[in-house]
Amino acid sequence: MRSSIATVCISGSLGDKLTAIADAGFDGYELFELDLVTSRMSPEEVVARSADLGLSIDLYQPFRDFEGVAPDQLARNLRRADHKFELMNRLGVDTMLLCSNVGTATLPGESVAVDQLGALAVLASQHGVRVAYEALAWGKFVSTYDHAWRLVEQVDHDALGVCLDSFHILSRGSDLGAIATIPGEKIFFCQLADAPLMNLDVLSWSRHFRLFPGEGSWDLADFVARVVHAGYQGPLSLEVFNDVFRQGDPGVTARDARRSLVLLEDAARAARLPLAVTESAVTDVVPAPALLAGLPHVDASRGFSFIEVQPGNGSAVDDLLTQLGFIHRGKHQRKNAQLWSQADVHIIVNGDLEGTRPRVAAIGFEVSNVQCASARAVALRSHLLPRDRATDEDILNGILAPDGTEVYFSERAGETPGWLAEFGPGASVPTASSTLPHTGITHVDHIALVQPWQRADEAVLFYQSILGLTVSDSLDLAGEAGLVRSRSLVTADRGIRLALNVTPLQPGETEVYPNHVALHTNDLVATVSVLRARGTRLLPIPQNYYEDLDARLDLGAERVETLRSIEILFDRDDRGDFLHVYTMPIGQVFFEIVQRTRGYDGYGAANAPVRLASQRAEERGRPTD
Amino acid sequence: MRSSIATVCISGSLGDKLTAIADAGFDGYELFELDLVTSRMSPEEVVARSADLGLSIDLYQPFRDFEGVAPDQLARNLRRADHKFELMNRLGVDTMLLCSNVGTATLPGESVAVDQLGALAVLASQHGVRVAYEALAWGKFVSTYDHAWRLVEQVDHDALGVCLDSFHILSRGSDLGAIATIPGEKIFFCQLADAPLMNLDVLSWSRHFRLFPGEGSWDLADFVARVVHAGYQGPLSLEVFNDVFRQGDPGVTARDARRSLVLLEDAARAARLPLAVTESAVTDVVPAPALLAGLPHVDASRGFSFIEVQPGNGSAVDDLLTQLGFIHRGKHQRKNAQLWSQADVHIIVNGDLEGTRPRVAAIGFEVSNVQCASARAVALRSHLLPRDRATDEDILNGILAPDGTEVYFSERAGETPGWLAEFGPGASVPTASSTLPHTGITHVDHIALVQPWQRADEAVLFYQSILGLTVSDSLDLAGEAGLVRSRSLVTADRGIRLALNVTPLQPGETEVYPNHVALHTNDLVATVSVLRARGTRLLPIPQNYYEDLDARLDLGAERVETLRSIEILFDRDDRGDFLHVYTMPIGQVFFEIVQRTRGYDGYGAANAPVRLASQRAEERGRPTD
Repeated sequence: MRSSIATVCISGSLGDKLTAIADAGFDGYELFELDLVTSRMSPEEVVARSADLGLSIDLYQPFRDFEGVAPDQLARNLRRADHKFELMNRLGVDTMLLCSNVGTATLPGESVAVDQLGALAVLASQHGVRVAYEALAWGKFVSTYDHAWRLVEQVDHDALGVCLDSFHILSRGSDLGAIATIPGEKIFFCQLADAPLMNLDVLSWSRHFRLFPGEGSWDLADFVARVVHAGYQGPLSLEVFNDVFRQGDPGVTARDARRSLVLLEDAARAARLPLAVTESAVTDVVPAPALLAGLPHVDASRGFSFIEVQPGNGSAVDDLLTQLGFIHRGKHQRKNAQLWSQADVHIIVNGDLEGTRPRVAAIGFEVSNVQCASARAVALRSHLLPRDRATDEDILNGILAPDGTEVYFSERAGETPGWLAEFGPGASVPTASSTLPHTGITHVDHIALVQPWQRADEAVLFYQSILGLTVSDSLDLAGEAGLVRSRSLVTADRGIRLALNVTPLQPGETEVYPNHVALHTNDLVATVSVLRARGTRLLPIPQNYYEDLDARLDLGAERVETLRSIEILFDRDDRGDFLHVYTMPIGQVFFEIVQRTRGYDGYGAANAPVRLASQRAEERGRPTD
Repeated sequence: MRSSIATVCISGSLGDKLTAIADAGFDGYELFELDLVTSRMSPEEVVARSADLGLSIDLYQPFRDFEGVAPDQLARNLRRADHKFELMNRLGVDTMLLCSNVGTATLPGESVAVDQLGALAVLASQHGVRVAYEALAWGKFVSTYDHAWRLVEQVDHDALGVCLDSFHILSRGSDLGAIATIPGEKIFFCQLADAPLMNLDVLSWSRHFRLFPGEGSWDLADFVARVVHAGYQGPLSLEVFNDVFRQGDPGVTARDARRSLVLLEDAARAARLPLAVTESAVTDVVPAPALLAGLPHVDASRGFSFIEVQPGNGSAVDDLLTQLGFIHRGKHQRKNAQLWSQADVHIIVNGDLEGTRPRVAAIGFEVSNVQCASARAVALRSHLLPRDRATDEDILNGILAPDGTEVYFSERAGETPGWLAEFGPGASVPTASSTLPHTGITHVDHIALVQPWQRADEAVLFYQSILGLTVSDSLDLAGEAGLVRSRSLVTADRGIRLALNVTPLQPGETEVYPNHVALHTNDLVATVSVLRARGTRLLPIPQNYYEDLDARLDLGAERVETLRSIEILFDRDDRGDFLHVYTMPIGQVFFEIVQRTRGYDGYGAANAPVRLASQRAEERGRPTD
């Protein structure tokens, strides 16, 4: 289907917006009236610019407050419409969006609305254009899509149809069944927006918090499948009002929007309509999106393949890995990169990476087919990172995440990761370089990545679409220096768990919150005992925490004393328990060591304030505050 | 009354918070449990630190999810309470806040709640402490203050009373009449928070958007007067959860909180209770706040006295003032400051101010008594700016606004501002330094000041409390680079109008939006004609704007053509019309020239997107986008 986007989604001047929309690969756009009014480009110049960029103008929007009014007001409204229809002729755009009346409607009767919409349709047809009538969720007399359709059906004029906007329909929780009753040729336009679940008045929700499909909480694939099944032939168009996108980089927002639409078309193909509609019918009416056609979903459920760390200055990373029981297994054949392993955890310390402070530079995800995963990422408008590759190296393609982390796809070669061979034949067996005992770490439990606030929604879409992860709703963690908003992304079998944390902005400070890698053990008390015995410094936990824990949960004095004496944090959900500790940060990274029992599915969110406060106390050198 | 504040209002570690609370002059504080749990200070160390700082611990809070539960859960809850009562003994705090049950209540009957609250009261009294029961607005079975009181009344135990929290009561729109029926000694605690008017679910509203009294939309003076009239003797305490304050400077937030409480106590004295309660009774029961006692409100309705501008490098300011028809009237006796005047507008260009870019440095407000206004500002925890003063200079006290603008109070000496004498005897009559004709400017209409987002609420409280202005609700203006949030503050006669604009944050950019001074003329067409004739460059307005104006308002072709030909913006409200133009910015300031007719009371908000887009196009040198 053709792709389109409303200019209001994107920041900048009209010229900026059109360039960004074209660069992102959209076919056309909805021209938001205020973007034209504030532009110094004449309508004719807009037409020429659009043609240069290969963009069609799919909709002129919005026209407001028309129907259900007294006769004198109707005359003024028709005069206003006449002006706008003339403008549309100059712009060469054939469809205008009409929102149901919010401000000036005084006459609730359906016959009044039908008569007045009919008069508008006649005027539109005289100008050779048509009107797509949309029920705003907060419309005064018309606020549901089926009501709008009932009026359009009664007018029965070629120049009047409906516009279906996912926000206005899904925000009201409307039954979607009536979409199938609207003839496809009467659906003049389809606007798409996702949204977070909020219990906010629908107008504020709509104006400030809309998201691109996949970034919010709605099932837009089902919505699109229904609209297409009804026979809609027009473009799928995004209309997203969002306070953050309004001030973002136009090119990034447009690329992100396009990614969301590619993903949505793909999901819509897979969406099943309820009851009578068969699967083949859906497949027939929802054509395969050209870009993703034939590309399977990424199967990232095999888990984390490796973590690449930038060591910074000094040996802090090597020292900590040694203490944590990692064993040095070899050096990369061509790079100054060292492999450290323990059970299924592989950490590559890459000395070729520049920068003075240690940080997580890249994450390798094990997929079933690197070529498919890469092709899908490119189709989702990611660019493959350049990578020098020797002929005997593993095929390993990477892309850049919005937070700057490099994401790599990796395949297994038999029982071991294919890239392991790059570290020489010796890498497949442990070397004797470590004399310290194993600490019981088994695998990577999760990785927590800090996101800049203005790119957090983009990051959710990125990891979800590229890796095929499922997103949770947002959670607030109370930090000393502000709230941290956290969303987790997981595979169904939890082989991959990512936590994306949006940290508070610190005006005037350049403080960057570190990322962290959580490693799993089957016996945290034993692991911590080993670590403490060898002098590993873990994040101190206040004694007050254990008094509160004892008050909150009746764990028994002995258990609490065990946790307290070696400073382990404890959480419990309705399935199981979670025990965890943190290393001290080295540069921009720290490690967590966790133990999950009996299906506990969280990340110890209740303890996050304790962790954040203790880290800040250490960082500020104020251990007694 | 004693003043108190919850530690949760403020950013930082518990140590940071206590220091900030003490520095701001509070008498005590509510200890938020998580602030203790995350602290490395033991309870005994908290007691010692509080004593050092002269602070009492007025409340331990919150205790949650106690009543209305099954017997086994009750046993666990009493065990939990027992731990916390012991902790309170160590802290030397005598009152605990109990929130009505949200999570675990399963038994709705009142008798169950009464029995269980009774058991808690007995346990509390065994520890020598008491429990203040508060109805959370989203409590499962108990969500209104009168319901909470009904339960407390039935329990009838000395160790159980109610906590009245303005948020939970006002957010539900509860009738406040029942406050008078609660015996004062059963009101164990009073928590205060303001809030903006929002149609958000009450839990999110409460957790993220609370404000200090005066920053939001509620009549807290009436609330406090009622609580005090009921006989409440405890502290007035602020409990404000706010995402921005959580990451702000602890000292600034605490000072702001204290200011809001001083202002509230003052307003509460003036608040009138309805019906049977006489004015004298109110005055009796609401004692005069010590700080403001005897200080009259600031009478700033006489208007703007002067505007002080920093000229920066070059003569741009002088040149523009000359073009706008200002006349040079003299030099300050001791400073390198020049006075420019036109009718009632006085602009001081102060060459002693350092900085390369022109900006508004100070605003003088004419008040009836400078000493009173200054004393009030100091009582509201502002600091007077140091000012060298010669013996023959006008008494002119200044304070610093949160946005960095200096605010001065000035008195009249007869018909002219007292400070005019500082510019020598010649300053009272125009000199012949300008050969250009007068442009018809009569007075300052309003001044628009840009606020950093993290200090916007503080600024609203500052201007409101210091100058006695009335605040409007917030308005969103769509700028190309993000939404601008605007609130206006006015005197009743509109002698003072301030617009505080919160601009979007531009990640990675250091762009600062300029402030502007709006000057009034009685005939903008004539004024603009004079300005254009002398070559003054005004902000270009796109032709598309006039086509849209013609479509929207039936002004007549001739009127639209007049506006279009000299590029005047036009707005209309239900009372009158507003015409306005803008000069090009010079540094961080520009001028607007406006004409209000027939009581128009706005600021042309509908045209703000046009202004913002045009300014940005000029700034970026992209006039054709």
